[in-house]
Amino acid sequence: MTENDKFAQRIARHMLSEEGTGPAWGIDYEDGGVGWSQISFTVKDDMLNGHGTIHGGMLFALADTALAYACNSRNDRSVAQQASIAFLSPALAGEKVTATAREEALQGRSGVYNVAVTGEDGRMLATFQGLSRTIRGHIIETKNEQEN
Amino acid sequence: MTENDKFAQRIARHMLSEEGTGPAWGIDYEDGGVGWSQISFTVKDDMLNGHGTIHGGMLFALADTALAYACNSRNDRSVAQQASIAFLSPALAGEKVTATAREEALQGRSGVYNVAVTGEDGRMLATFQGLSRTIRGHIIETKNEQEN
Amino acid sequence: MTENDKFAQRIARHMLSEEGTGPAWGIDYEDGGVGWSQISFTVKDDMLNGHGTIHGGMLFALADTALAYACNSRNDRSVAQQASIAFLSPALAGEKVTATAREEALQGRSGVYNVAVTGEDGRMLATFQGLSRTIRGHIIETKNEQEN
Amino acid sequence: MTENDKFAQRIARHMLSEEGTGPAWGIDYEDGGVGWSQISFTVKDDMLNGHGTIHGGMLFALADTALAYACNSRNDRSVAQQASIAFLSPALAGEKVTATAREEALQGRSGVYNVAVTGEDGRMLATFQGLSRTIRGHIIETKNEQEN
Repeated sequence: MTENDKFAQRIARHMLSEEGTGPAWGIDYEDGGVGWSQISFTVKDDMLNGHGTIHGGMLFALADTALAYACNSRNDRSVAQQASIAFLSPALAGEKVTATAREEALQGRSGVYNVAVTGEDGRMLATFQGLSRTIRGHIIETKNEQEN
Repeated sequence: MTENDKFAQRIARHMLSEEGTGPAWGIDYEDGGVGWSQISFTVKDDMLNGHGTIHGGMLFALADTALAYACNSRNDRSVAQQASIAFLSPALAGEKVTATAREEALQGRSGVYNVAVTGEDGRMLATFQGLSRTIRGHIIETKNEQEN
Repeated sequence: MTENDKFAQRIARHMLSEEGTGPAWGIDYEDGGVGWSQISFTVKDDMLNGHGTIHGGMLFALADTALAYACNSRNDRSVAQQASIAFLSPALAGEKVTATAREEALQGRSGVYNVAVTGEDGRMLATFQGLSRTIRGHIIETKNEQEN
Repeated sequence: MTENDKFAQRIARHMLSEEGTGPAWGIDYEDGGVGWSQISFTVKDDMLNGHGTIHGGMLFALADTALAYACNSRNDRSVAQQASIAFLSPALAGEKVTATAREEALQGRSGVYNVAVTGEDGRMLATFQGLSRTIRGHIIETKNEQEN
């Protein structure tokens, strides 16, 4: 793991610590680096739709969170502008769900990230593609701006 | 309001009552009918990202919920297959956010729904387009299938 | 029709006249104004896939062209950043296909446009949602900047 | 290359030979196999927008064509249902543009494909994610159905 990857992890953990959704959703930051992240949560009762499976909004929310950690991994503050998701399989109550975001492209201030959302047995629950845009500022302010 | 619109509202309220996410998110079903729905919630602390504004995942979740009520409004059980969202403006803690879903097209078992997500002052927070697919079954089982 | 709508039409016709794709695709600019446009073409043999119906790429191309005229209608040069399309019904060789783009939202430099693509009998062939971004410059340079 | 990969290439070449768009766009099938394909074309004058760069519709059309060859590679007839594209960089007249489609997920009758569209120098022009659905029939009818 490079210094930049370590710094990317520090950024992600810092973001997670400031998010109200982090504890609400039980987000676990598992791994990551420059341009990618892997996070997970366990499906709770308050995430279920009327069929007793995970609400599509929560699959999106997990993927969108993974995107946020990946697109901010260089400490250039970035936000999601647009995202698309395809739902392939439901997740059940109590199941661990993992989202892995990977940078597909970075062009100027725009980035594209693919996120795979998988269930405990590795089956694909949803695939997600998001478009980020770099705005002003940093996630972690550093004295010597070493991160750029 | 036609009988079919009244029945669409009954279906939506029934769905909401069975969702674990309904009370968790504080979903308020405001209005609806055949092919459309309008719902809202108020942004709570556990919906906030690190900037103190609503997490994109929660904007999607509200839009996706509105889609679910609209695409099931004929009592033919339907699920979202795919959805896209563009984020335009953040919402703040305590702000009421409204999602209005409207049927754009219905072709065989596929439906397309546009959802506008707006803030208290009417500004557009996000626009969403979702693709639904009708599967087997009904939301409310009726003796005489009057709803078809 | 307001002066701004007339100017929007002039901008669209100017754009069309400069596009290599205009004559290649037989684009007909039918109507438009500030924030919207309606265009059409007739499905030709060189637009067909192996099933003898219109290639999905050409349905997208027509919708994307309608978006371009709508998002540039204020003479602030804009480009599509992202777009999503759902395919609902095929079009046949010789059929006239129409795309109508309407502005759903405009927030800062970002715009969202919904485009309905319909066949001769009015059936929905595809629905499209595109995200535009305003860049520098104008489509038509005017002495007195009356268009702003 | 496995027998299945060889058969996938045969299917793709067969599809291309039946498409009116193939010669119109100058599609070159470069490589492929089960679940993937790589194709290219050279940007011609009739593909240009008013800025003298490739029309976004043509970038989509190339990506959508690559998707078609990838999602039909098992000889189960499939069609695109929905697709999203993000535009990152323009291509110029005379430039060779390549689209590489890869299967991200396959679940029942639904498939998800990511397509990278690149320029001659390898820069990313667009990223595309498409959702396919298997319908009845095959691309190539075989005596002994060996392809299943």
